Amino acid sequence: MNYCSNCGSARLVHQIPAGDNLPRFVCEDCHTIYYQNPKIVVGCLPEWEDKILLCKRAIEPRYGLWTLPAGFMENNETLEQGATRETWEEAQARLEHLSLYTVCSLPHISQVYMIFRAKLRDLNYAPGVESLEVRLFSQDEIPWNQLAFPVIYRTLTDYFQDRASGEFPVHLGELLVHREPIVKY
Amino acid sequence: MNYCSNCGSARLVHQIPAGDNLPRFVCEDCHTIYYQNPKIVVGCLPEWEDKILLCKRAIEPRYGLWTLPAGFMENNETLEQGATRETWEEAQARLEHLSLYTVCSLPHISQVYMIFRAKLRDLNYAPGVESLEVRLFSQDEIPWNQLAFPVIYRTLTDYFQDRASGEFPVHLGELLVHREPIVKY
Repeated sequence: MNYCSNCGSARLVHQIPAGDNLPRFVCEDCHTIYYQNPKIVVGCLPEWEDKILLCKRAIEPRYGLWTLPAGFMENNETLEQGATRETWEEAQARLEHLSLYTVCSLPHISQVYMIFRAKLRDLNYAPGVESLEVRLFSQDEIPWNQLAFPVIYRTLTDYFQDRASGEFPVHLGELLVHREPIVKY
Repeated sequence: MNYCSNCGSARLVHQIPAGDNLPRFVCEDCHTIYYQNPKIVVGCLPEWEDKILLCKRAIEPRYGLWTLPAGFMENNETLEQGATRETWEEAQARLEHLSLYTVCSLPHISQVYMIFRAKLRDLNYAPGVESLEVRLFSQDEIPWNQLAFPVIYRTLTDYFQDRASGEFPVHLGELLVHREPIVKY
């Protein structure tokens, strides 16, 4: 951040505003304070019979690796709307019966993942512009060593464990990179 | 947004970037794209025996009304760390045994509330700088017509209903202002 987006001044300082306890970018001319906060990544784990749908990424980071359809939540939508939208954009797939499944903080990158289990409505899925390929995988077929992100690895691990028991509680967790890795490839 | 915070240009336009499907602020000089996304509000419902802790707001909006300790999640923290921090800042209270309780989208203001049930560690609570007063309320004492926000009203309503049954599932929901109000005072 080099300039104040309100008044255009270059006199931006990074300091703790009065009454606050964390440093923020503050404009010394118009006194606007800029807050930066975590972003929500919404996504789905789409089920069809005993299979789940994965997308092969056509974009960086992790081009060519497999992931669940997910992306940044947009303003003026609900969590479910965001998860549904991302699944449509990346896999051209329609869903029903969404239920919250993974809630995972990634503090090192200031993201919170919110992933819903959901049923595919039909088999009319296809790669969106951000996907090279979209396909259903049975448990035995999951490309465990070609998954794009640790949080996806963890969600799929939780899912297949839960499927064995038939109970799918909300999984609240965190992935911390400065500790011993929780997920190992 | 009047100026590009990267290069200082006033040539900002609000348009759909190539490959995107929503309008963003885009700088016509340096081509920086500005994304705006929902914010997470983290908070707690602190329990002590059959009572819960509420804070009387010392700040706008809703000065003088009662709320659960909650506020914007900060970068580089987990959901639980944020909820714990906000409870300390607003009520000077320490917590244990956090469990996720309310997950509520507020799309009209692009916020997602994440509220945890938690146990107060002790009775050493006191108003933080953003609170006029902090006190424990039994169910009969809750100031239902002096609550600061609909999402707080809903969380407390869910809580006392769940307490009667002894089950506290995660409540996933949304509050939409353009429909018939879900919560009425």
